[in-house]
Amino acid sequence: MKENQNLDSSKVSPFGGDLEEAIITIVGVGLISGSFALAMKEKGFAKKIIGVSKTEASLQKALQLGIIDEALSLEDAVRQSDFIYVAIPVDVTITVMEQIMALVNDKQIVADAGSTKYRLCQSLKDHPMRRRFVATHPMWGTEYSGPEAAVRDAFQDRACVICEKEKSDFAALNIVEEIYKAFGMHIIYMDAESHDTHAAYVSHISHITSFALANTVLEKEREEDAIFELAGGGFESTVRLAKSNPAMWAPIFMQNRENVLDVLNEHISQLRKFKSSLEKENLEYLTELMENANKIKRILK
Amino acid sequence: MKENQNLDSSKVSPFGGDLEEAIITIVGVGLISGSFALAMKEKGFAKKIIGVSKTEASLQKALQLGIIDEALSLEDAVRQSDFIYVAIPVDVTITVMEQIMALVNDKQIVADAGSTKYRLCQSLKDHPMRRRFVATHPMWGTEYSGPEAAVRDAFQDRACVICEKEKSDFAALNIVEEIYKAFGMHIIYMDAESHDTHAAYVSHISHITSFALANTVLEKEREEDAIFELAGGGFESTVRLAKSNPAMWAPIFMQNRENVLDVLNEHISQLRKFKSSLEKENLEYLTELMENANKIKRILK
Repeated sequence: MKENQNLDSSKVSPFGGDLEEAIITIVGVGLISGSFALAMKEKGFAKKIIGVSKTEASLQKALQLGIIDEALSLEDAVRQSDFIYVAIPVDVTITVMEQIMALVNDKQIVADAGSTKYRLCQSLKDHPMRRRFVATHPMWGTEYSGPEAAVRDAFQDRACVICEKEKSDFAALNIVEEIYKAFGMHIIYMDAESHDTHAAYVSHISHITSFALANTVLEKEREEDAIFELAGGGFESTVRLAKSNPAMWAPIFMQNRENVLDVLNEHISQLRKFKSSLEKENLEYLTELMENANKIKRILK
Repeated sequence: MKENQNLDSSKVSPFGGDLEEAIITIVGVGLISGSFALAMKEKGFAKKIIGVSKTEASLQKALQLGIIDEALSLEDAVRQSDFIYVAIPVDVTITVMEQIMALVNDKQIVADAGSTKYRLCQSLKDHPMRRRFVATHPMWGTEYSGPEAAVRDAFQDRACVICEKEKSDFAALNIVEEIYKAFGMHIIYMDAESHDTHAAYVSHISHITSFALANTVLEKEREEDAIFELAGGGFESTVRLAKSNPAMWAPIFMQNRENVLDVLNEHISQLRKFKSSLEKENLEYLTELMENANKIKRILK
């Protein structure tokens, strides 16, 4: 007991064993998994990080950047890992997760980082190894992708949603939470359905509007020099997400299509109100719409 | 001649006289005029900066923040100024500019910083003092307003549009350009009509979509805590402009309503394409829309 109290708890691996012993696999070596790997290394939470990817060039790049220590096949990687972290397009996740869950034993932990949670949780709900899985969504990202996009201190001060926590083994859940907390995240619990609804409102619709805004400007503004020359900070920030990777985002919108359609319909109807106020030259109504939008200041800093 | 060559040109007032002699009036003491005043002071381009505003509290704040040295009525300010810089809502600009132009002599220079240029230029086109006026639009701003929003080094590396340069006195134009260049801006010339078209594409529509996005999320997401907790960087950047001041932006949209409506219609039609791809579960079409939007990467860094 005395010895335990004297242990430097920051040096204790979240896996309960010696730091040197934790082997991590990241499935996908991109923005999220790469940033996760960098954070794990920085915290000393990994003896070795193995990368799995169907893209050989990404593996080479990740090795070169020091994000992973080794590249292996999914099966070889999973067999020797304490923790498997999956961050690949959400449609592929469902198939790959089946393969992973067929390989894991009751000491291993599997987590995903997908932007949708309902379909994946549904697909795993009756799996005999369900308790080894923790469904997570760290609410962080940028418009860039690939291992080069991975950054240090990515997750600091952001929220991480964990879904269906009661379906995960308590110790496994605890370890995943400790990892995210060590990265500076705060944990929010939700059922998978609620997660997807909220994600449509606060994340997915932002991406759709940004993609559509880029298409609008590319369609209307035939003088690309003018965009380049004139675009101020406002345009850049609203259109930034339009640089995001379609391979990652199209499956998210598809899996969450009912919620996304619901909020997209509302968005079109809100835009029509602006249109109507302009058509009628109704300054009072236009001002009212904008004053209502200003309420977002109450919520965001 | 020899003496002139030995002058430290960075110390020469753009007004051609001694630095100590330049008296500047800013009409409006907010984000743009305040940042302009701070930049003028930093460059040593002003002996004194006078503030004019109908809002007494803003004048007091601007005095307190050292943005202006004195607060005066419009008439008193204009009578003693070498340069009058107008940055107030674009509808009020037209009326106030009439008052200013009735007061100025052929040594004084007047410029505005408005986000629309056509109406103002039209209203001044036959004015006997038209040549003392330079129509400018420094392409910089933030979502904040008032003298507290003024920042140092605001204009650095941004574009400044100057419209109808041939209608301004050559020396007056030159001085205004030298001021903006000293702030680190590059000058772009346009006719006023083209300016307003391009501004609708690269600035005004971004603001409309951001206001409408805020209204969408406020309408759908009744759990404000969820917005606060979950909103990542993506949401914040797309919705940031929704914090902008309606008193400033409503008149811009109104003055530029034909261009804004044109691009808003296009935007709604682009959003409908996303909607249609989701309704039909057409992953290929959805991906194509997003890949097209990715072309914005070519234009923005």
